[in-house]
Amino acid sequence: MQKLKEIIAEFEAHLPSITTQPGSPREVYEPISYILNIGGKRIRPAMTLAAYKLYQDKTADDVIKLAQAIEMFHNFTLMHDDIMDKSELRRGQQTVHLKWDDATAILCGDLLQIEVYEKLTEIGNLDILNLFNKMARELCEGQMNDMMFESRSIVTNEEYLHMIRQKTAVLIGFSLQAGALLGGASKIESDTLYDLGISMGLSFQLMDDYLDSFGEKAKVGKKIGGDILNKKKTFLWNEMWTNLNQEEIDSINHVFETSNDDEIIEFIKRKMQSTKADQKTLHLAEQYTTSSHSILDHLSKIGNTEYLEEILNLLSKREN
Amino acid sequence: MQKLKEIIAEFEAHLPSITTQPGSPREVYEPISYILNIGGKRIRPAMTLAAYKLYQDKTADDVIKLAQAIEMFHNFTLMHDDIMDKSELRRGQQTVHLKWDDATAILCGDLLQIEVYEKLTEIGNLDILNLFNKMARELCEGQMNDMMFESRSIVTNEEYLHMIRQKTAVLIGFSLQAGALLGGASKIESDTLYDLGISMGLSFQLMDDYLDSFGEKAKVGKKIGGDILNKKKTFLWNEMWTNLNQEEIDSINHVFETSNDDEIIEFIKRKMQSTKADQKTLHLAEQYTTSSHSILDHLSKIGNTEYLEEILNLLSKREN
Repeated sequence: MQKLKEIIAEFEAHLPSITTQPGSPREVYEPISYILNIGGKRIRPAMTLAAYKLYQDKTADDVIKLAQAIEMFHNFTLMHDDIMDKSELRRGQQTVHLKWDDATAILCGDLLQIEVYEKLTEIGNLDILNLFNKMARELCEGQMNDMMFESRSIVTNEEYLHMIRQKTAVLIGFSLQAGALLGGASKIESDTLYDLGISMGLSFQLMDDYLDSFGEKAKVGKKIGGDILNKKKTFLWNEMWTNLNQEEIDSINHVFETSNDDEIIEFIKRKMQSTKADQKTLHLAEQYTTSSHSILDHLSKIGNTEYLEEILNLLSKREN
Repeated sequence: MQKLKEIIAEFEAHLPSITTQPGSPREVYEPISYILNIGGKRIRPAMTLAAYKLYQDKTADDVIKLAQAIEMFHNFTLMHDDIMDKSELRRGQQTVHLKWDDATAILCGDLLQIEVYEKLTEIGNLDILNLFNKMARELCEGQMNDMMFESRSIVTNEEYLHMIRQKTAVLIGFSLQAGALLGGASKIESDTLYDLGISMGLSFQLMDDYLDSFGEKAKVGKKIGGDILNKKKTFLWNEMWTNLNQEEIDSINHVFETSNDDEIIEFIKRKMQSTKADQKTLHLAEQYTTSSHSILDHLSKIGNTEYLEEILNLLSKREN
């Protein structure tokens, strides 16, 4: 992972410029520094830099600003999503709305979003601004769909895949596409990088869902089985649910009513295995990874795909 | 108010293009239509059009988009501020977070903010984008100051005037400045229009504070005395407070502990009158209006100031 470490280090070297802002009152800037400083894989800004490096050897100021805007936007969505989802932990630390309060998390998220646009305006590329707006709108639509799905008993796989495309994949698509555009990509090439990002994003989310039930707590860094306890209608859940007979459905309902959390999680995991829902989820994730590899092969005619390959390998073999 | 009616009608003729959006899911678009449709004075977009008309006779598409972006941004701040302030009514109607819920109001506000930037990106003027970002950042700082002042027992007039400048005046300043820039104003001229907006905004907010205690319920359209009951540290409150002796302060504390709302409001209003805090507030508002008039006189050399004059007269004589 040498190449990847190199670009993440490059990105993180510029972190202080977004985490130590001189504005006043301090109270509206501290939560922004906090969320940007508590870590995260920095995978999206790494993708932006990797796509740029298909075209350029030397990292220009503008692509750093773009990578920063993307990481800041990602953290803006987390800050607000955590209020909406009433989440208590983010990257093992208290969420902003718990450490401070809801009003602070709303306002600081709004300010962070404005700072994203400050970066994008500094870059001054209207094509990138337009693509960003389109992506951000889709992401909001995806978050609304995600929230609405919670109160529905059935969500089709088609609906679910559409939702994760909006909520996760379009930002990854944009990260690659905009990095490539700044590097000098043609419209067609940058669209290809967007498609690569969509494949990688869908695979990423399917693996996320799989690991939420079948990962190891120590590696994933959070309690396993949260989606199961929330009966979240993921592809993994759907592939189990649609392959159960009435007797099995009754037994699941019974377990949810009478058993403790660990027993519920174990019971559902066995059902996911007996219906091969776990294998089907891994298989679909692999299909998207295969698509990603063929897009990458195609891109290797353009320039140096080493960085992108490392990211793809990291994501496809990830255990956290 | 012929001229003003004319430009507000012009703005409202284009309202459907921002209130009837075809996106999906409908659930994320309906609250946006709702807040944009429940009225409001449309004073900010009118200002943008009025500033533009200093330079241009014919209204171009871009200035309509700019006026829309400004009205949408204003409503975005209301949607989020109402959650933070736990407000139940907006323009006599239920606030979005009450009619739906907090999560919906957060997400729809975020989407509305993105739509603001879509409009600004369509206009494609990077100077206007930069000015907008700067203004929006100040507005967030102002909202944080406003929230922080609630828990403080003393706020100086200087701090208060700085806060209302950020929270109210900078958006009005931007509305005039950006309209003028699109019309073809020079940098110096557009800065003058910004200054005019700051004066008008400060006067507007001071009148707002005055009417919150001394307005007529039927005209203001809300219960009178809300700021008093919240002990809001406005200029009006401060001018009373700093002119009380210890005996009077004790009597106020006693009234707050023992009397009902109407009695508290009447008692404090009498204190505001006996200390002349009411007159000092009106006087300061008038001073800003006088400044505004002299800036307008200066601008009359450039072009048609009729629209701006009507707005200024409306604001300085307002009873609601």
